Amino acid sequence: MDIKYNIIRSTKSKKENVKDQISVEEPLEMSLRYKKNGDWIVENISITMRTPGNDEDLISGFLFNEKIIENINEIEKIEKKGETVGDYNLQNKIEATINNTKNLDIGKLKRNFLTNSSCGICGKTSLDSVEVMRQEKLDLSYPLIEEEVIMKSPKLLIDKQSEFSRTGGIHASALIDKNSNLVALREDVGRHNALDKLIGFSLKKGIINPKNQFLACSGRLNFELVQKGLMANIGLMAGVGAPTSLAIDLAKRFDMTLLGFVKEESFNIYNNIDRIIIKN
Amino acid sequence: MDIKYNIIRSTKSKKENVKDQISVEEPLEMSLRYKKNGDWIVENISITMRTPGNDEDLISGFLFNEKIIENINEIEKIEKKGETVGDYNLQNKIEATINNTKNLDIGKLKRNFLTNSSCGICGKTSLDSVEVMRQEKLDLSYPLIEEEVIMKSPKLLIDKQSEFSRTGGIHASALIDKNSNLVALREDVGRHNALDKLIGFSLKKGIINPKNQFLACSGRLNFELVQKGLMANIGLMAGVGAPTSLAIDLAKRFDMTLLGFVKEESFNIYNNIDRIIIKN
Repeated sequence: MDIKYNIIRSTKSKKENVKDQISVEEPLEMSLRYKKNGDWIVENISITMRTPGNDEDLISGFLFNEKIIENINEIEKIEKKGETVGDYNLQNKIEATINNTKNLDIGKLKRNFLTNSSCGICGKTSLDSVEVMRQEKLDLSYPLIEEEVIMKSPKLLIDKQSEFSRTGGIHASALIDKNSNLVALREDVGRHNALDKLIGFSLKKGIINPKNQFLACSGRLNFELVQKGLMANIGLMAGVGAPTSLAIDLAKRFDMTLLGFVKEESFNIYNNIDRIIIKN
Repeated sequence: MDIKYNIIRSTKSKKENVKDQISVEEPLEMSLRYKKNGDWIVENISITMRTPGNDEDLISGFLFNEKIIENINEIEKIEKKGETVGDYNLQNKIEATINNTKNLDIGKLKRNFLTNSSCGICGKTSLDSVEVMRQEKLDLSYPLIEEEVIMKSPKLLIDKQSEFSRTGGIHASALIDKNSNLVALREDVGRHNALDKLIGFSLKKGIINPKNQFLACSGRLNFELVQKGLMANIGLMAGVGAPTSLAIDLAKRFDMTLLGFVKEESFNIYNNIDRIIIKN
């Protein structure tokens, strides 16, 4: 499932308004219904950020891959639950009823489980939950970054990365200042970990300065990464890969400048071009 | 942190034994120590699969980015805990003591929290936990796949992907048979979701046949993905990106053939070359 967003495709010679296909990211709450001592029990087992569609396959594959069921026939039925919510009118809750409860270890299952509001889980409630953590929007007056500095950022990342060049198996996040100086860089197999490490290190050293710095990331930008950037008061995030729908929605709500597909000659602007200094 | 593994670099003309740098993936258990009504309380808040190193930055960035603390000075101390464990002699537990407990909502924090054994969390215990779900190794006699079929798999994925080509923002997993037929493909912003959807769909349709099929994935291969492939009895997994150390260790323990950096002209073999039919 994807959706079109109005974005600006930016090269050194040209700024072009285009409609771009964006992968939708929305939460799905999965629950399990099973019989225990004669009573039916329903338990939430996981919330995952997923692309809507094939949700029945997702929960049945999850149950099988986590060894909750050994055979697909143990699933009696799968039902979408709750009202349709959010921008895409989706039911974001799904429940599987299983008829095999031997050895069921529900504790092991309860992974990735976030407590959430009761008003219907969707992208909007995910955005609302960020507002609980941060009320004010980002200051639109900073940072101001030249477009050439943005275009240089992927090379800066690769030059300074220790392991990435050797293994290609690691994500990186970096703070870069308006003069193309790499302030700090952290790497990890998990992109959220790379960003947590970067922010933790930079806070400790007192070297974060959102007025003159932006955040560059090696991969795709999802909701979680933009949320972390927002908490650190970062006004501009630039990813080498694509952002998800919810990452863009979050950037829009808090006035973050969000860039994707950053290359040596071009990048996409998903929100707030004003922080970019354009020479031509 | 990375480590060298003996691998085989495979092109159509040549098979070469080389030592390859691999990013280490190991679990880190984070806990929070705080005062409540005069008593010190310690609670586990998260387990994450991370690259060891800068763990203090990781927990402090996590606490800040999740808005548990508003200022880095609220962290009184950070301590590594537990014995050194596993192949890398690491302390994989870390505890932050904080002196600000106003508005502390510990429930919100308890994310990604897996229950785990008490014998020390490390890569080895992660591997052991998979053995609880599956005792026997994979059958080494299947699937048998020609190397040319492997090399064609990234193109097959891209050709059949609906959104990937348009947005570049989505992961794909596919079952491909020994004759280069794409049996099924699923996409998602989360790579674990893409694989769950694929397996759920294929089980429902009864089209999984591990004797003649392998699993191709668009991105990097980590512990979680290999675990899911293993549960579906998949003998050969091929990734466009790099595997982590723990993904390789898991493949080795269960005799899965694990391939990475799969391209039109070459790929890397991290374990069990025997399932690949080499023409030259």
